[in-house]
Amino acid sequence: MSRSGEFDLIRRFLAPLATAAGAGALEDDAALIDAPEGRLVVTTDTMVAGIHFPGDGPPDLIARRLLRSNLSDLAAMAARPEGYLLNLALPEWIDDAWLEGFAAGLAADQEEFGLSLFGGDTVATPGALTLTVTAFGAAAVPVRRSGARPGDRVFVTGPVGDGHFGLKAVQGEFDAPRLAARYWLPSPRFGAAEGATAAADISDGLVADLGHICRASGVGAVIELEAAPLSPEVAALGAEARLAALTGGDDYELVFTGRNSRAIPIGRIVPGEGVTVLDGAGQPVALARQGYTHG
Amino acid sequence: MSRSGEFDLIRRFLAPLATAAGAGALEDDAALIDAPEGRLVVTTDTMVAGIHFPGDGPPDLIARRLLRSNLSDLAAMAARPEGYLLNLALPEWIDDAWLEGFAAGLAADQEEFGLSLFGGDTVATPGALTLTVTAFGAAAVPVRRSGARPGDRVFVTGPVGDGHFGLKAVQGEFDAPRLAARYWLPSPRFGAAEGATAAADISDGLVADLGHICRASGVGAVIELEAAPLSPEVAALGAEARLAALTGGDDYELVFTGRNSRAIPIGRIVPGEGVTVLDGAGQPVALARQGYTHG
Repeated sequence: MSRSGEFDLIRRFLAPLATAAGAGALEDDAALIDAPEGRLVVTTDTMVAGIHFPGDGPPDLIARRLLRSNLSDLAAMAARPEGYLLNLALPEWIDDAWLEGFAAGLAADQEEFGLSLFGGDTVATPGALTLTVTAFGAAAVPVRRSGARPGDRVFVTGPVGDGHFGLKAVQGEFDAPRLAARYWLPSPRFGAAEGATAAADISDGLVADLGHICRASGVGAVIELEAAPLSPEVAALGAEARLAALTGGDDYELVFTGRNSRAIPIGRIVPGEGVTVLDGAGQPVALARQGYTHG
Repeated sequence: MSRSGEFDLIRRFLAPLATAAGAGALEDDAALIDAPEGRLVVTTDTMVAGIHFPGDGPPDLIARRLLRSNLSDLAAMAARPEGYLLNLALPEWIDDAWLEGFAAGLAADQEEFGLSLFGGDTVATPGALTLTVTAFGAAAVPVRRSGARPGDRVFVTGPVGDGHFGLKAVQGEFDAPRLAARYWLPSPRFGAAEGATAAADISDGLVADLGHICRASGVGAVIELEAAPLSPEVAALGAEARLAALTGGDDYELVFTGRNSRAIPIGRIVPGEGVTVLDGAGQPVALARQGYTHG
């Protein structure tokens, strides 16, 4: 296998992605970022092959999922995306063909979401492929996790559990090509959190991420198990899958609180603490775990 | 060995470092960053244990060197530092004692340079300890690599080769405790690049980094071998060490171009391309390599 040296690699695969003026074709020690209208919002995620994504997945989809998971964090803050930094720690098996696919995935999503590569760093590693994206956005009125109040309703922007069961589909444990595609290409829900009192993206699982909102806001939440929307493929798996969908991570839908929304209502904010899930008879459901952690 | 879970780890070791208002005790999906006066300057470096630093080094010094290498990039752009994001990919051997030392190193340099932790991401890895810092600064007039013009002089802010020979001292190949300390604690040269026509920090080696300036500016450079300042421990090693000092990386002094400076003049910018090194007799020196690359 052959791979370009660092400077060639940047020139061939990454410099064409640096379309913003301040990125300066990635030639400087640092990037100049124009102050956006509104507040600057910055988020960063690191993903390790074999832990956060299947390392043998298609490189274009690995790139797009990495980028979209960060865009989803911007969406949760009611920010619009502007650009990103990219840090690559590449093991020896990564060759030019892989990098070409990876860059093509980034280019596709830059086009789709109106982004530029601002800069980054590329290094070799003796360990696992490790990818970091730091995404920059702007928000007129940023939404934080700490603003939920008793009386607010709880909403989600789409089906829960698609990430969890999508990964099983990717791994061949479950025949559901549409969910496999949803795993690789989550849709950042830009606009959905605008006007919310608090919001988070569902990366650790609905119950865990709503729990983060509750902790930051000093409130509790009650959600109805049967109100949580499921994809048909997941619903068909039965009651146990419904519970797994509420605690499985990697969904990248948003959970948020507020008074009104066109999103799907699943519960309410109450005084107290923690997340209570009620079954169809109004009884609390015992959850084996609160959510997913990558450790 | 024992290590706190991700949330405990953030609460215990990282949240106390998040002193800026927008960091929100690291509770949100993203950080809010106040627009600085001047241009926003952002830089990022990834360092892998065993490649970019000795993995068995003291964790407080690993932290400070990681942070300072990024601050050095800000200094090269004539920016002042504001804060940083931290991404940690932690192998299993990292325990709470290591994290405590690492956080203490960050706290010391936050105090010294007036920084806040803005946010980040912490994950587990089956591979090598992989650390990423993304540093934010502000520059009234940012200095880029592309502004060098024939007639400019070339300056450096301090001795070259201390990083290269400092690593040898850290590895026990060479008895020079002061250089070992310089390896772990480079001094970002804030202020030095103000008013320069072009600047870079010496992370790849003087000849290589000046070469980057030449390429970005469309010019050449001529430097005098004997004008390049050396630490006494390096000078004592003789002529071969003098050459190695010009191509060894990890110095984090600055090389910059301009008309006047209180820094050390070592050469001049000329029409053409590439970096020519002249010996005491005015003859070009053949360099075995242009500079250092981590691959």
